[in-house]
Amino acid sequence: MPQYRAPTEDMQFVMHDWLNMTQHYQELGMEEAADKELVNAIIEESAKFSSEVLSPINYPGDQTGCKIENGKVTTPEGFKEAYKQYCESGWSALAEPQELGGQGLPYSLSLVTAEMSSSANTSWSMYPGLTHGAISALKHHATDELKAAYLPQLVSGVWTGTMCLTEPHCGSDLGLIKTKAEPAEDGSYKITGSKIFISAGEHDMSDNIIHLVLAKLPDAPDGTKGISLFLVPKILNTENNTTETDNAVTCSAIEHKMGIKASATCVINFEESKGYLIGQPHNGLMCMFTMMNKARLATGVQGYAIAELSRQASLDYAKNRLQMRSLSGVKAPDKPADPIIVHPDVKRMLLTQKALTEGCRGLAYYVAKLVDKVEYQNDLEAGRILDLLTPICKAFMSEAGFESTNHGVQVLGGHGYIAEWELEQQVRDARITLIYEGTNGIQALDFLGRKILRDQGKALTQWLTEIATAAQQVDESLKPLAEKVMWYAKECGELAQGIGMSAQKDMDEVGAAAFDFLMYAGYLTVGHVLLQQANAVLSSQQSDDFKQSKLQTTAFYFARILPRVKTHKALIQSGNAVLECREFDLDI
Amino acid sequence: MPQYRAPTEDMQFVMHDWLNMTQHYQELGMEEAADKELVNAIIEESAKFSSEVLSPINYPGDQTGCKIENGKVTTPEGFKEAYKQYCESGWSALAEPQELGGQGLPYSLSLVTAEMSSSANTSWSMYPGLTHGAISALKHHATDELKAAYLPQLVSGVWTGTMCLTEPHCGSDLGLIKTKAEPAEDGSYKITGSKIFISAGEHDMSDNIIHLVLAKLPDAPDGTKGISLFLVPKILNTENNTTETDNAVTCSAIEHKMGIKASATCVINFEESKGYLIGQPHNGLMCMFTMMNKARLATGVQGYAIAELSRQASLDYAKNRLQMRSLSGVKAPDKPADPIIVHPDVKRMLLTQKALTEGCRGLAYYVAKLVDKVEYQNDLEAGRILDLLTPICKAFMSEAGFESTNHGVQVLGGHGYIAEWELEQQVRDARITLIYEGTNGIQALDFLGRKILRDQGKALTQWLTEIATAAQQVDESLKPLAEKVMWYAKECGELAQGIGMSAQKDMDEVGAAAFDFLMYAGYLTVGHVLLQQANAVLSSQQSDDFKQSKLQTTAFYFARILPRVKTHKALIQSGNAVLECREFDLDI
Repeated sequence: MPQYRAPTEDMQFVMHDWLNMTQHYQELGMEEAADKELVNAIIEESAKFSSEVLSPINYPGDQTGCKIENGKVTTPEGFKEAYKQYCESGWSALAEPQELGGQGLPYSLSLVTAEMSSSANTSWSMYPGLTHGAISALKHHATDELKAAYLPQLVSGVWTGTMCLTEPHCGSDLGLIKTKAEPAEDGSYKITGSKIFISAGEHDMSDNIIHLVLAKLPDAPDGTKGISLFLVPKILNTENNTTETDNAVTCSAIEHKMGIKASATCVINFEESKGYLIGQPHNGLMCMFTMMNKARLATGVQGYAIAELSRQASLDYAKNRLQMRSLSGVKAPDKPADPIIVHPDVKRMLLTQKALTEGCRGLAYYVAKLVDKVEYQNDLEAGRILDLLTPICKAFMSEAGFESTNHGVQVLGGHGYIAEWELEQQVRDARITLIYEGTNGIQALDFLGRKILRDQGKALTQWLTEIATAAQQVDESLKPLAEKVMWYAKECGELAQGIGMSAQKDMDEVGAAAFDFLMYAGYLTVGHVLLQQANAVLSSQQSDDFKQSKLQTTAFYFARILPRVKTHKALIQSGNAVLECREFDLDI
Repeated sequence: MPQYRAPTEDMQFVMHDWLNMTQHYQELGMEEAADKELVNAIIEESAKFSSEVLSPINYPGDQTGCKIENGKVTTPEGFKEAYKQYCESGWSALAEPQELGGQGLPYSLSLVTAEMSSSANTSWSMYPGLTHGAISALKHHATDELKAAYLPQLVSGVWTGTMCLTEPHCGSDLGLIKTKAEPAEDGSYKITGSKIFISAGEHDMSDNIIHLVLAKLPDAPDGTKGISLFLVPKILNTENNTTETDNAVTCSAIEHKMGIKASATCVINFEESKGYLIGQPHNGLMCMFTMMNKARLATGVQGYAIAELSRQASLDYAKNRLQMRSLSGVKAPDKPADPIIVHPDVKRMLLTQKALTEGCRGLAYYVAKLVDKVEYQNDLEAGRILDLLTPICKAFMSEAGFESTNHGVQVLGGHGYIAEWELEQQVRDARITLIYEGTNGIQALDFLGRKILRDQGKALTQWLTEIATAAQQVDESLKPLAEKVMWYAKECGELAQGIGMSAQKDMDEVGAAAFDFLMYAGYLTVGHVLLQQANAVLSSQQSDDFKQSKLQTTAFYFARILPRVKTHKALIQSGNAVLECREFDLDI
């Protein structure tokens, strides 16, 4: 069955040959990370941990799932031990500041390790993943006292964190939440309410769980402007960490889900639980936005990371499964049939997996570099592009990842549908990435509405200019591809303008065009990424085989994937009219 | 949770207003079926059985799955009882000849009932479904003696049937099978071998299971021309059905699958099991082809039938889930938020489900009418179009169905990922339809290679001419849509010619274009189907609401789905060159 092999060659190519990350680390003043040997050593070590520790417990974890008994959640065999090893080896603290016990390495490097965890075992990666979000919110918005009390244990991984947003009646629309926060006499708050879909909300991997909870103060205005953020620990360590008190935080159920079955998705109930305000009253959503970009990027990474695992397994299968002869003549005369990889339709699926996965990886690392610039240098220009590209990362990369896992199943045919081959698990695991951290429909609205139209297209224009400028500078041999990038970049801007015009008459034109516009921009952006990688590989010291493979993948992408923009363009231009049906019309 | 409601209004519209089925039944000499009241009564009864008996055990069946103990397979609670009721009510024998104990009604009418079973409970529908395939093969190829001994019990449903094709090392390439048939002294054969992926291979719903098994005789030539078909009963009823003897047919395992978990997918072992030759020696594949068209059509029907269930559930959810306000102004001022159906992106998904499902239903019924003509009138012209459209039905309708079930999940957001909402089950159930009965890649090769190029485009030209001619005759108000159909029909023919030219130089051009060409032809064909439905609805006696809904759906399809051919065209034209990578290039 598939054992994950980290694609370290491609990772290092993207990091060094394309993105020149060590120089970037130098510029950030992160001397340690500016050492290429160190970066590669970390990648290799993470690869080892992912393939040797996380990968073997991926399929068993799916089969067992999490169990709940009397409010206690048990994770699958090996999960706790792997987490312990992960923390002890310092992976949890890789990109956290040294003053908090972290290793002080850059975020972008930690993203490479997160990709590997997600490939090897997405369910498992949810537990440390959520903690990072909590750390981020606390670092930016908590008081020094709270930071001192909670950050070190979160950074070391001794405690884990959660994000408690969703309630039974509200997910995308957080303005509707009902969870209440009443001021207590000691300056803390009593939190009461019920939250659902809480990843890592309860489990057996850490001593304490620190919940970040959205709730409403008594005087809260209606809607999203009346939401505040609270830190609510499962166990209170009130007096110098010596007395442990239960904080009336209970887990009443875990969800039975399509996939990521080894990730505990909990119903968490707060009954006058002690909570501490994070940031200003009624400013909870702002505090959450701090970590949103990274959480959304991480979700997109999950999408293509699972696809990478699928790709490896389907490629192995295609090379070994003998079935029928090639239409263009026998390819393996010594065997009873040719391996199915000789059939163009199988190659089509394998190359689609490869092109989408490599394209998304490049995009993710590029965007992680922007996060670095924002986090460590407060680079506003990088921040603008980061904000623009975040919904693409989340939505496009999850769509691409899900599609790729389905190609993986299809390459295996009937065996792809059987659990023990693990390909179907990847489809089920990947499916959630299109939904959580804001559905892809919400991402599309964010992209087109908030990031483009509200900004009058400034960020988009900046990005399209960057794409086109970079395309103009590629090697002569890549000019035909570069011309396509320039052409579509121009068209993308025109389409955005067109939508902007229509939206002035009817705001529903934005919703009608949003998803297809995001996908259009996504294909274009990944085309840019692969073009630049192809250009970088030409002048790199990579092996001829690597060079040929990268050029082939890029050529495939431009011939066989990028043309999808043609359809998206037509759908964008078809407008909202055809969607204006009466509710009743859908009933028949 | 979703209870299936049969879309009888649309079914009856397609049957009567568009396809004029009762007149067709009259022409077939099937007087009874020529009665519209009777046809509608059967549809209503089947709707009742599906929603009241099959639908309630669909989700529980998925949760329980089948169990195996000591070679005995237990189906989920209620399955056996539903099957008994199904047989007793005569559903099993609906379209079988009266001389075999059937009701002598047309195949096309039974397909409507099969759609309903598949929507309500795909797993359950596998058990009677496989039996119909076995009946078909026996009717056409078995000796009178075997027919007399086996057909009545298969028709009544007292016994069920299977198709035993796949072996561990061969699925698509049946030429590689190893199961052996050795002549016995009494004229029968001893069958020895192991078959996998045998749906309904073992279960607790019938007294006996009649396996149709592909095996090789001792003198068999290599490859697919050396395969023979045998009837191998689980239990031998040798002496006037009085002595029952175990026939050494054992089930050693059932598969743990992604979906259709209540359908027992068995490993079946034959150890010198007594078998009877069906048809001529070495002619087994031909005997299987007899039932292939219907089996492939039925698989496509499963695809859109599951999508219909998903569509109903997601529509209900979208009308009731309150979340955010419409961008174009508040729509439900009395509520805390608008129902999500007001958002264009949600309508986009719901309308995509509706258009694909209705389009596929129309296509399926149209093709079932062709099956009638072939079966009851040996109409060669209809047979040519049936052969052409069969791979489209199987592949396009399964792709469309799977896509639609994913829209269903997406409409529900996080809840779509939770088992108890049942939407995720539909994705898992639908996923198999892209694989079994010949993967969609195999269908594409069959379509382009065997049905078009080998035939020098005759059948395709005939079909495209029919499409274009019908388009020319629609109501004036539909002319803009009709022009699109004519345009794409012309382009489709040109694309086929182009591939034919390239294939003369390199046969791999066929494989490289096949999948996209099938999808192109599928979108065009469904466009034709919806255009003709729109035309039929205008002059029908349907309600104004129904008319508006059908016209809206058709307009949506043309604006929002048909443009996908633009991308498929570009991919077809990109050719094989970009797929010609070394195996090694995929490794990096």
